[in-house]
Amino acid sequence: MLLNSDHSMKKHNFSAGPSILPKEVIIQAAESVLDINESGLSLLEISHRSKAFIDIMEEARSLVLELTKLNGKDYSVLFLQGGASTQFSMVPYNILSKKAAYLDTGSWSSKAIKEAKLFGEINEVASSKDSNYNYIPKNYKIPDNCDYFHCTSNNTIYGTQIRKFQSSKIPKVCDMSSDIFSRQLDFSKFDLIYAGAQKNLGPAGATIVIVKNSILGKSSRNIPSMMDYQTHINKSSLYNTPPVFSVYVSLLNMRWLKSNGGIKRLEEINTKKATILYSEIDINPHFKGYAKEEDRSIMNATFSLINDDFKETFDSMLKNAGIVGINGHRNIGGYRASMYNAMPIDSVKTLVEVMSELENKV
Amino acid sequence: MLLNSDHSMKKHNFSAGPSILPKEVIIQAAESVLDINESGLSLLEISHRSKAFIDIMEEARSLVLELTKLNGKDYSVLFLQGGASTQFSMVPYNILSKKAAYLDTGSWSSKAIKEAKLFGEINEVASSKDSNYNYIPKNYKIPDNCDYFHCTSNNTIYGTQIRKFQSSKIPKVCDMSSDIFSRQLDFSKFDLIYAGAQKNLGPAGATIVIVKNSILGKSSRNIPSMMDYQTHINKSSLYNTPPVFSVYVSLLNMRWLKSNGGIKRLEEINTKKATILYSEIDINPHFKGYAKEEDRSIMNATFSLINDDFKETFDSMLKNAGIVGINGHRNIGGYRASMYNAMPIDSVKTLVEVMSELENKV
Repeated sequence: MLLNSDHSMKKHNFSAGPSILPKEVIIQAAESVLDINESGLSLLEISHRSKAFIDIMEEARSLVLELTKLNGKDYSVLFLQGGASTQFSMVPYNILSKKAAYLDTGSWSSKAIKEAKLFGEINEVASSKDSNYNYIPKNYKIPDNCDYFHCTSNNTIYGTQIRKFQSSKIPKVCDMSSDIFSRQLDFSKFDLIYAGAQKNLGPAGATIVIVKNSILGKSSRNIPSMMDYQTHINKSSLYNTPPVFSVYVSLLNMRWLKSNGGIKRLEEINTKKATILYSEIDINPHFKGYAKEEDRSIMNATFSLINDDFKETFDSMLKNAGIVGINGHRNIGGYRASMYNAMPIDSVKTLVEVMSELENKV
Repeated sequence: MLLNSDHSMKKHNFSAGPSILPKEVIIQAAESVLDINESGLSLLEISHRSKAFIDIMEEARSLVLELTKLNGKDYSVLFLQGGASTQFSMVPYNILSKKAAYLDTGSWSSKAIKEAKLFGEINEVASSKDSNYNYIPKNYKIPDNCDYFHCTSNNTIYGTQIRKFQSSKIPKVCDMSSDIFSRQLDFSKFDLIYAGAQKNLGPAGATIVIVKNSILGKSSRNIPSMMDYQTHINKSSLYNTPPVFSVYVSLLNMRWLKSNGGIKRLEEINTKKATILYSEIDINPHFKGYAKEEDRSIMNATFSLINDDFKETFDSMLKNAGIVGINGHRNIGGYRASMYNAMPIDSVKTLVEVMSELENKV
């Protein structure tokens, strides 16, 4: 029964998150649920204090450092719960003493700002809210008199992505939920990186945090244990029961990433996929892109039909081609094609073929 | 490959958590990772806003109300992240204005008290710390002048369980992480119940909260969105991406529970399992129980060898019988047999046979 799952038409899954994972990761994940390491036990029923799971957590943490080239540097890697939404308050809880600088590039930045305001004064250095976040603000200055600067590297909803990160004298915090491990960056330029796993890293339920140890311990605030990075650092992410399955599947995905050439190789493929799709958006007279060209995300492409009368026809063509998860977010409408690491080029080509066929149909 | 997982010797898994789940739940969970609802997509890669997952969440929430007989009453059910450890601060964040009463019956109670002290004054009504928590204090009074009373229904580490809950005029909060759904209770006597899933409910990664709506909204505290029960109530546990897989497996487990006679039937079986094991502990001259008899838990039995010279022999006999996860917690040593809902009577009988054989061996 388990092996007969390929009965249905091949799906091209453009979902924005939770999202596509490599087929081999999914098969290994299913196997682990039945039996982990030929132990006769399911991954779901072993203790998080067992050697099997401690090894999983250690390998996951060390692969994060390896992939980001941060090993040997002053960083701790944590696997937590609660998603980026929890980090929106956990960050200021730990490192906002008086004032912090935030860049507003979309819904998630705005939510991060709203939560941070409970903890101190917020200097919003720039915002693209005026044009519904279809671009990344650039000519802003990061002030020196703030505890940290916070930005969102990729804006899933709007399909924009920061190409160049400004340098700053204050610690730099980045929400990389939707593009971590998709492109090469000098990760050592950041002091705190966090990401909900369910986009480019693994399944829902785990949150990765990479934090420079030296920025911690400066706040005099009383922090609830679970909100305190130091709690989790001291216990190597095993202070309380971690999200065992999500951590393991994230590990499987990082192993896949490493064996497929690492971030460098994936960035090449991601760029190629994005180029194929954006080229079609630009040359096809039926479509227009949403994001400003120079700020386009290689993870999430947002676009819409120029004439909405064709929507029914196009949607039915998408469905017939097995393309799913491509509806735009309610904030901007239209379509959104998310092309995370695990998305094969073939799926993007299939989408482009359907877009191109629309010309012949209407 | 997937179906060949029964190659190894049958394991009897007495792990305290994450812990045993019903075999059929594990198989269904593995199938969902490959393909959910014959959709051609893995459960791990579908959107939490998809109809498939919204249906899962709704059924899970409604099964909790059905199993606890709270449907139609003024309660909300939430599936959150972060475990009971997060609830230790989330509870006072939401409902501690000035002063709260706590009963200290073990490590988890103590941790809950420690976190609550960040938010207000704590009246510790009683504690069994003086005898390393081997009993449940009884002759205490729950004061009327506190915002709420908090207790832990079952103490995994020490093997004690509250048999009779005192009535009180103030709201009653209970951490039921390790015995929820194991015995019939009048759940409407509680105003807030929480439980990390990974013991008697499902896999690690989900936390269930059952809260009486009328106790909320009374604090003037500014609560971070993710720590505010009302945020999650307003969005039916879909404010942010929930732990999709853990919620689904918890649902599978509740379906199993319902189709196996519900809490009433499981309580009968759990009582039978506990009686078999405690009888052996009491009659076997090589063993002694840890918890005071009247406070013994039907979920976690704690016991030790009277003569530690036999430890090596006994451990090797356990291993040969396929018994795993039975080491006692470091706080008290010895052995701990956790017998959650999914544990078959046969596993308990196997353990008792091994204990009984020790008499012939030494």
